[in-house]
Amino acid sequence: MSQYWSPAIKALTPYVPGEQPRERVIKLNTNENPYPPAPGVGQALRDYATDHLRLYPDPTSAALRATLAKTFSIESQQVFVGNGSDEVLALAFQAFFCHGAPLDVPTITYSFYPVYANLYNVELRPHSLNASWEVDIEALGSASERSGVIFANPNAPTGHAHSLESIEKLLKRVTDRVVLVDEAYVDFGAESAIALIDRYPNLLVTGTFSKSRSLAGLRLGYAVGSAELIDGLQRVKDSFNSYPVDSLASLVGIAALNDEAHFDACRERVITTRERTRQRLEALGFEVLPSKANFVLAQHPDYAGAQLFAGLRERGILVRHFNTPELNNFLRITIGTDDEMDSLLEALQVICG
Amino acid sequence: MSQYWSPAIKALTPYVPGEQPRERVIKLNTNENPYPPAPGVGQALRDYATDHLRLYPDPTSAALRATLAKTFSIESQQVFVGNGSDEVLALAFQAFFCHGAPLDVPTITYSFYPVYANLYNVELRPHSLNASWEVDIEALGSASERSGVIFANPNAPTGHAHSLESIEKLLKRVTDRVVLVDEAYVDFGAESAIALIDRYPNLLVTGTFSKSRSLAGLRLGYAVGSAELIDGLQRVKDSFNSYPVDSLASLVGIAALNDEAHFDACRERVITTRERTRQRLEALGFEVLPSKANFVLAQHPDYAGAQLFAGLRERGILVRHFNTPELNNFLRITIGTDDEMDSLLEALQVICG
Repeated sequence: MSQYWSPAIKALTPYVPGEQPRERVIKLNTNENPYPPAPGVGQALRDYATDHLRLYPDPTSAALRATLAKTFSIESQQVFVGNGSDEVLALAFQAFFCHGAPLDVPTITYSFYPVYANLYNVELRPHSLNASWEVDIEALGSASERSGVIFANPNAPTGHAHSLESIEKLLKRVTDRVVLVDEAYVDFGAESAIALIDRYPNLLVTGTFSKSRSLAGLRLGYAVGSAELIDGLQRVKDSFNSYPVDSLASLVGIAALNDEAHFDACRERVITTRERTRQRLEALGFEVLPSKANFVLAQHPDYAGAQLFAGLRERGILVRHFNTPELNNFLRITIGTDDEMDSLLEALQVICG
Repeated sequence: MSQYWSPAIKALTPYVPGEQPRERVIKLNTNENPYPPAPGVGQALRDYATDHLRLYPDPTSAALRATLAKTFSIESQQVFVGNGSDEVLALAFQAFFCHGAPLDVPTITYSFYPVYANLYNVELRPHSLNASWEVDIEALGSASERSGVIFANPNAPTGHAHSLESIEKLLKRVTDRVVLVDEAYVDFGAESAIALIDRYPNLLVTGTFSKSRSLAGLRLGYAVGSAELIDGLQRVKDSFNSYPVDSLASLVGIAALNDEAHFDACRERVITTRERTRQRLEALGFEVLPSKANFVLAQHPDYAGAQLFAGLRERGILVRHFNTPELNNFLRITIGTDDEMDSLLEALQVICG
């Protein structure tokens, strides 16, 4: 606390990301991709004329937005880009969710949403998951007034994904405010709501290069939606930071998007390893929630989450443990390489043996 | 306008950066450095193992902050880094200037300050420059209540810089709120207030890699001050975006900081060219404000600013013209290479001939 801080800053509870360890460990705690980015990324960096760094980037990121538009078969003016989807989400809270009414959100979801809500003074209306640990999409937006609706699909840290059909049902009901679908993990087996943006002007879909494009270190995220939503995001961005996406991030992002074969191969491998891991965890007695993401949420009837977390950590394996009443018993395990998952499973066999 | 936008977003007037032209022009409009970044920057990018991009960056940017701390002979906990000093300034507005009282600011200064004020609902108390176009540092913070004080030193777009002595006088008077000195242009001949941070816990100094480090394309900025101010910035940052500085930006920033000889050589050249340009503009009849930055603000008694701007543009030379009553007659001219300045001066000779 400091007398110099703005009063509201004293009341913030900042987001705490998963550990970034310095020592050599098996890192299954922050949902990074175990496979490298597309080979074109390295080539683009080696070929780059660094003299260009003395010039400001294009503030509209036109080339990157055009490449994303082509990737999704939409128009450039339906695309916004930012410094990671975390920044894009923060700007969306400012642009769309400050209407003096509660924002509908699942109780268990990406833990940054309540942090944004606190920062921008947005009241949340949390809705419990159903008995199968799924987002109750019927409940979202069912009250008479709201500032908007936000949820992740697939949800984090549960991994469950709704079908486009059930998302469209929600969009038919909620037409007055923005419905934000956070698709950070969509490429590992779920359906993208981008297919619906032409029909629902209040649908905003966010995504990231951090997971399926293996570029967490780059900080690149995007939002797609109607031109009027993208325009709203741009207004906030241009009142905050003219050039959040730097020249190297654009270059690397475009190189990654241009290699669909690498993208498909990496996500297929992650999906295959996820299903194999799930089966083997179940064979060890774990309950594993069905996941369409690059992680699984799992709990064991006989061992507490904190105990398993500590045991794995002692053996040099980092997973994520959330210290909340609902999730206390679970581990969120990122899908790594087959070798990494073998090490995890061997360690769990010893701990639970 | 859109029914989906938060009401406050409708009232924003976003910042408009200088043009980033696509065609080949002499670009003297956004205060970029005409010289390339340190050779070590290119080497670092060519040597980088791109596989690391699959991992998140260090959210605390410890290595970059340590290198900045060494550069300034201060401690790491006195350093904050962000996605350009524009982002750092925006976070500082949120962290320090929301106290429900006016923020003291010069009338003519970096035009992003009123945009931040509008975004974060901070009332401004503008103070006119004196008759010599200098920030009236005596007037800043002279009222009984304030949310803080902000000014650029050297100021933009005038180029005038105050001595450390006069800044310290201000700091002796204003002890209740943050005094933010924006030193984007300090390396071209002004004195840095970083020398004062150990004595004034409410002094925050911001800086950028965009100008004197030739890295505008990278988006890297910093703030230095007491640990309690840096802690306040980190709280806001961690409620907004855990990793605003990506792995490549850290790598490149460190490479640039490690080459003091290149840094000194480039800024000396800019300073020499600035003084030569000033003399030659004066010989053409221009009034040129004395500048300690990498630009000059100049006006001609016989030719309107808009007219000169248009004439230069026709000849493929971009400078900056501000369409405000006070600055309407001026041109802000970035200091380029000697050849670029020769082309500018030849063109002005024709236009004013």
